[in-house]
Amino acid sequence: MDWVAVDWGTTHLRAWLMGGDAPVLRTSDKGMGALTPDGFEPALLALVGDDLTGPTPVIACGMVGARQGWVEAAYAKVPCTPPGIAQAIRVPTQDARLKMHILPGVSQDNPADVMRGEETQIAGFLASNPDFAGVLCLPGTHTKWVQISAGEIVSFQTVMTGELFALLSTQSVLRHSIGDGWDDAAFDAAVSDGVSRPQAIAAKLFSLRAESLLHDQSPNVARARLSGLLVGIELAATKPYWLGQQVALIGAPGLCAPYAAALSAQGLSATLHSGDDMTLAGLISAFETLKEIP
Amino acid sequence: MDWVAVDWGTTHLRAWLMGGDAPVLRTSDKGMGALTPDGFEPALLALVGDDLTGPTPVIACGMVGARQGWVEAAYAKVPCTPPGIAQAIRVPTQDARLKMHILPGVSQDNPADVMRGEETQIAGFLASNPDFAGVLCLPGTHTKWVQISAGEIVSFQTVMTGELFALLSTQSVLRHSIGDGWDDAAFDAAVSDGVSRPQAIAAKLFSLRAESLLHDQSPNVARARLSGLLVGIELAATKPYWLGQQVALIGAPGLCAPYAAALSAQGLSATLHSGDDMTLAGLISAFETLKEIP
Repeated sequence: MDWVAVDWGTTHLRAWLMGGDAPVLRTSDKGMGALTPDGFEPALLALVGDDLTGPTPVIACGMVGARQGWVEAAYAKVPCTPPGIAQAIRVPTQDARLKMHILPGVSQDNPADVMRGEETQIAGFLASNPDFAGVLCLPGTHTKWVQISAGEIVSFQTVMTGELFALLSTQSVLRHSIGDGWDDAAFDAAVSDGVSRPQAIAAKLFSLRAESLLHDQSPNVARARLSGLLVGIELAATKPYWLGQQVALIGAPGLCAPYAAALSAQGLSATLHSGDDMTLAGLISAFETLKEIP
Repeated sequence: MDWVAVDWGTTHLRAWLMGGDAPVLRTSDKGMGALTPDGFEPALLALVGDDLTGPTPVIACGMVGARQGWVEAAYAKVPCTPPGIAQAIRVPTQDARLKMHILPGVSQDNPADVMRGEETQIAGFLASNPDFAGVLCLPGTHTKWVQISAGEIVSFQTVMTGELFALLSTQSVLRHSIGDGWDDAAFDAAVSDGVSRPQAIAAKLFSLRAESLLHDQSPNVARARLSGLLVGIELAATKPYWLGQQVALIGAPGLCAPYAAALSAQGLSATLHSGDDMTLAGLISAFETLKEIP
């Protein structure tokens, strides 16, 4: 093993052992949210310690570098290239075999916004698309819309669509009306409704409950409608980002698909890119630079 | 004791012993959500059983009449007067002293909407304001906007503002940035922002987190801003209800105050009415009719 690539988020730790024929992925549920500062090194060693044969570079991105993480890696500020190894912080470890580097996130002063982890996916995307000019959309718990020009993150906007959907569908009164399935037509209609009349969103949500009480709306339709309304108002809020732009979606295929459908209805044909692939590509890009440092 | 007035919601059971010098309020946490159908009578007897000296009318409103309640009281449909004792269902009981009546809620087919409990507050309000023509706003977990004309509920609209605020402030990532306090100026500015640019709501929420991470936004300001944004998009969605109308607010003073402030900024001077008083007045109004039935 030559080095370890680490994606360390709030809820999960994922480490790729690098250097063999293909990266070997190991995962644990020791996310940042489950750890105090002195718990990070043991969590990492539990996952990869047996494979360490000598001094080994580790490059990590994500919430591991947050204020409440292992060690804070101060944000780079837009406009900026995605932070690489030159901006990473070197974290001292008890185990001398770990040569630990944490990549910083990116912040924006106005409107105030932050990302941690996505900047590395962006670096991975730009590594193979160096001339891309347009907008990246990274769907997730907190979806990021990112304006890219000349290899730099120019500006970005976070939208809490994923978290809102999870809260409303599992914890609000709407949970009684929402199932596990899906309905494409209901999703498309709700996106259209959300984009064209975002001011009605506050009134639309409870209708999902009332429609099931009064008109036997199917739980699958309710779920697709809720998703569509939330993606619709997200598109309304981010129109300055995507209107007339080249858009690339980066994320899990299941998360990207509804965004692709919603953008398609707005006349945009987005390209799709695996979030995992982009994370790994971004970490590899940082490692390549590390190798060049004398 | 002449009779018992009952407000039986999802989370609480409240019973007023009626007939003495003043109503005596008893409360328990045996709300509809905590009970199966055979648990309602014991819960009521636990609260008022010792005071029953003979056959006693009980008149109840709220979720006790929902499909998952004691016995379903089918909705009255708008346009209609608030349902009274003539529309109540008589519920058989094991204990012959209970003469149990449940008032139905009100539904609207299009847009689909339902209420249970608020119709009794509306009846209470109309009992002392029979000529009111305008709009009632009943702030709560699910705020109701109700168009009243000639003593009838003409149409209504539910907005989940209270539930959204609770979920976002205690269960989402925003909880890390939100305190227990308040800031009037921040609330006013956020209402104005939400009313005038509701399409931006999806982008505004995460800013509350980023402002605290980057700019030390106070937790009180964050709380007032979140409330203001949500009330602002509610006002944007319900503008057809309140614009140019006479508005009366019915609810707990602490819930009504921010709505009064938000409406005032839109040039509307709303009157304030205690929700508890209106519930009791509505139940009394139903009892008065019951007395007239031979």
